[in-house]
Amino acid sequence: MLDDKNGIDNFLKKNEGKPVVVIQGLGFVGAVMSLVCANALTEEYAVIGVDLARKDTYWKIKSINEGLFPIVASDPKIEEFYQEAKKKDNLYATFDNHAYSKADTIIVDINLDVAKKSGFYGELNDYDVDLSAFRKAIETIGDNCKKDVLILVETTVPPGTCQKVVKPIIEKCLEERGLPIDEFRLGHSYERVMPGPNYIDSIQNFYRVFSGINEVSAEATERFLRTIISTEKYPLTQLGNTNATEMAKVLENSYRAMNIAFAVEWSRFAEEAGVNLYEVVKAIRMRPTHANLMLPGIGVGGYCLTKDPLLASWSKQTLFGSSEPLGQSERGVQINDKMPLYAYQFMKRSLELEDLMGKKALMLGISYRSNVGDTRYSPVEPFYNYLIKDNCQVFLHDPYVRFWEEKEMEIPLDYEEAFKHDLDIVIISTGHVEYMQSENLLSYLESQKNLFILDTVGLLSRAEIQRLSKRHTVKIVGRGDI
Amino acid sequence: MLDDKNGIDNFLKKNEGKPVVVIQGLGFVGAVMSLVCANALTEEYAVIGVDLARKDTYWKIKSINEGLFPIVASDPKIEEFYQEAKKKDNLYATFDNHAYSKADTIIVDINLDVAKKSGFYGELNDYDVDLSAFRKAIETIGDNCKKDVLILVETTVPPGTCQKVVKPIIEKCLEERGLPIDEFRLGHSYERVMPGPNYIDSIQNFYRVFSGINEVSAEATERFLRTIISTEKYPLTQLGNTNATEMAKVLENSYRAMNIAFAVEWSRFAEEAGVNLYEVVKAIRMRPTHANLMLPGIGVGGYCLTKDPLLASWSKQTLFGSSEPLGQSERGVQINDKMPLYAYQFMKRSLELEDLMGKKALMLGISYRSNVGDTRYSPVEPFYNYLIKDNCQVFLHDPYVRFWEEKEMEIPLDYEEAFKHDLDIVIISTGHVEYMQSENLLSYLESQKNLFILDTVGLLSRAEIQRLSKRHTVKIVGRGDI
Repeated sequence: MLDDKNGIDNFLKKNEGKPVVVIQGLGFVGAVMSLVCANALTEEYAVIGVDLARKDTYWKIKSINEGLFPIVASDPKIEEFYQEAKKKDNLYATFDNHAYSKADTIIVDINLDVAKKSGFYGELNDYDVDLSAFRKAIETIGDNCKKDVLILVETTVPPGTCQKVVKPIIEKCLEERGLPIDEFRLGHSYERVMPGPNYIDSIQNFYRVFSGINEVSAEATERFLRTIISTEKYPLTQLGNTNATEMAKVLENSYRAMNIAFAVEWSRFAEEAGVNLYEVVKAIRMRPTHANLMLPGIGVGGYCLTKDPLLASWSKQTLFGSSEPLGQSERGVQINDKMPLYAYQFMKRSLELEDLMGKKALMLGISYRSNVGDTRYSPVEPFYNYLIKDNCQVFLHDPYVRFWEEKEMEIPLDYEEAFKHDLDIVIISTGHVEYMQSENLLSYLESQKNLFILDTVGLLSRAEIQRLSKRHTVKIVGRGDI
Repeated sequence: MLDDKNGIDNFLKKNEGKPVVVIQGLGFVGAVMSLVCANALTEEYAVIGVDLARKDTYWKIKSINEGLFPIVASDPKIEEFYQEAKKKDNLYATFDNHAYSKADTIIVDINLDVAKKSGFYGELNDYDVDLSAFRKAIETIGDNCKKDVLILVETTVPPGTCQKVVKPIIEKCLEERGLPIDEFRLGHSYERVMPGPNYIDSIQNFYRVFSGINEVSAEATERFLRTIISTEKYPLTQLGNTNATEMAKVLENSYRAMNIAFAVEWSRFAEEAGVNLYEVVKAIRMRPTHANLMLPGIGVGGYCLTKDPLLASWSKQTLFGSSEPLGQSERGVQINDKMPLYAYQFMKRSLELEDLMGKKALMLGISYRSNVGDTRYSPVEPFYNYLIKDNCQVFLHDPYVRFWEEKEMEIPLDYEEAFKHDLDIVIISTGHVEYMQSENLLSYLESQKNLFILDTVGLLSRAEIQRLSKRHTVKIVGRGDI
């Protein structure tokens, strides 16, 4: 079997006397959380990251132990924190569940996914939340943990999960092991991690909400969080129960998802009425009560906004037996899921073409968010797929993406090469700062004969549009006044 | 016929040489707009307010001319501005359309209503926008105005109205009068009036968005606005066309309506999951990106949020021929319209009563908004109707409402009297500051034997709930953790 007992024991020997923190899951959150814990502010922890010995995760374990942090990010603190942990030798990664038996604190940072029946950007007719992998991960903890461990769930879960899923599983496991079931502590505190230039700070220097399944658990959770987060500057907020914090997380993301869906509908209207929605939203945002108004784009991507409203609605109906879904929030996801298709149809309508056979397109930007290289559930992917399906030849560029994991494609370092191919279409798909007011990009665009330029993020300024419109057709999603 | 020619001419004689501003409509906006114009910052205007010689409007005309401003508000500037205008004698009110023939600038501040087929708080199955009254008002202007008048529309209209309705009507009228049709100026700039303690400032000291049907119109509109608004501190924003500013206004209000609808759905979930949504929302609002998150309540009231999303959706389909409504925004109104019913059903479920025969209830708050006396489309009205229908005896109180216009009822000055009647139910229906942390109210509540207290606005603190729960049943809409 998979055995790393020696590795774990050796590591803990070197860190004797230090409280042991084990992080379950080494993804975008867990991996960086392990750095923050290894560099805790007021405590010296021995930190072990645990992930599965699977093809797609094993390399991370190896990578952490061999001197290369597995997540590439523009935040220089990532490397700094990693090197500091290496120097102190208080960070270790393993696949062996033996680690859980040594933990004083276990942080759950695994994924909990929503299965959308017709694909991520299809019709949201039906979706399902499958808790089986999550349950299994919690069982692994229950089968190995100390009786008085603190389990801190950070995963975004359907509200009710700590009370109705995690607690009974841990109790059952402890009971089967002949251990008392009233000594473990179970807390919930969700992260607000933002991959990008402030990756570390989005954990260490940001507000946190927490709760526990009882007062002892809440206190233990608070004590732990105080050691890793700058709580003087970013005070902690305790909520009444774990349902409340779990709900807070999905509510936060549902709020943003719904705000975007709202903008999407109005962007259609703006196109119909010859209005520049970007200008309108900017004018409205001057009101403090309306500062959170969002802008439309090519679509909503990333790991959270695309699924969290569904986690919540599923929980309402399944864990709390309600007869009504969160209709407004579900509809938000539904609208957002159709954004790439809408943007594509908008382009096709404007091009007045049925097929793109023989056409050459360049997409500027692959990641779902500007100025980072995160391609998880990027709306650029379905847009790219539509182009390919319509027989278009597609060139890609993204200053932050060297390798597009979802498509297993190498991405060229610059877009200059693409422009040598006599392009027909240029799609600005992500609002990276490198594309904004870039004389270089503008002169490349101008050097072409007759381009169709689709700006899906409102990146081009009025002056730039005027310049480009002299020889090209420019269309912007959400604008009808060009 | 209705003739006030002499009155108007006498007034203008006294104000000879001053540019004449005529305001069409003396409602919550027009009346106060007339004060702001009579006290313009950089110009001396002769201001005439025009309204219809109808039972419900004529008294306002009389009132303005006879020394009593028709709108009672907590803003002391209202009286101050009115007295200043009286002193200068540059404000006059009339019902005679002759006034329009003297105007250099005409400001349109009349209402444009939506008819909801099943009543304002019923099922939003169908609704209609009837432009006939609005068209008639514009025709009155066209039949009388100077050929080079500046018409400034401030009414919240379906996007497209200035271009597709106002402009053709004015042109047709001028043509019929044998006048040139290319000299009048037509601008749109919506107000953001907030009745209450900052009534005047919400016009004079606040951001404005404007546009014109052509460059000359936009310039004239801007010039005029600069004379009445503190534009150095609150810069004006010009948008591309009148469709854009018209859209901005209804988008603003739709955004708020949808935000409330969002909170409504989640408040149901919070009740089901034993969560205090007020606490959750407070924790989330610490994030600047989520500061506009709203709280649920007894319902959405007032003149704007209850109809503006429908004006927009109607315009999209009717004026711009779109096959799709603004579904998300319409659904927001739909959800909000059901809030009073939901709150009432929540109370009935908690009371476990089918009928309220013989029960006595006190409602604290009538207006739709805290700290003002505005009862237009207040959600308290349907809630009150449900109580009456269920044979409950209802006492009412509101520190800002002496006379409830919609119900034609006198409202007592204090709630002490009601407590002498052996109450069964107390409903906190508006979050007035007078009710917050009021020892007086608390001791009255405590003095009762066995009350059912329904807090629809989350006014009671945790400590107050604990105090009251000793002898009473306390329920809060949006909270399940009491």
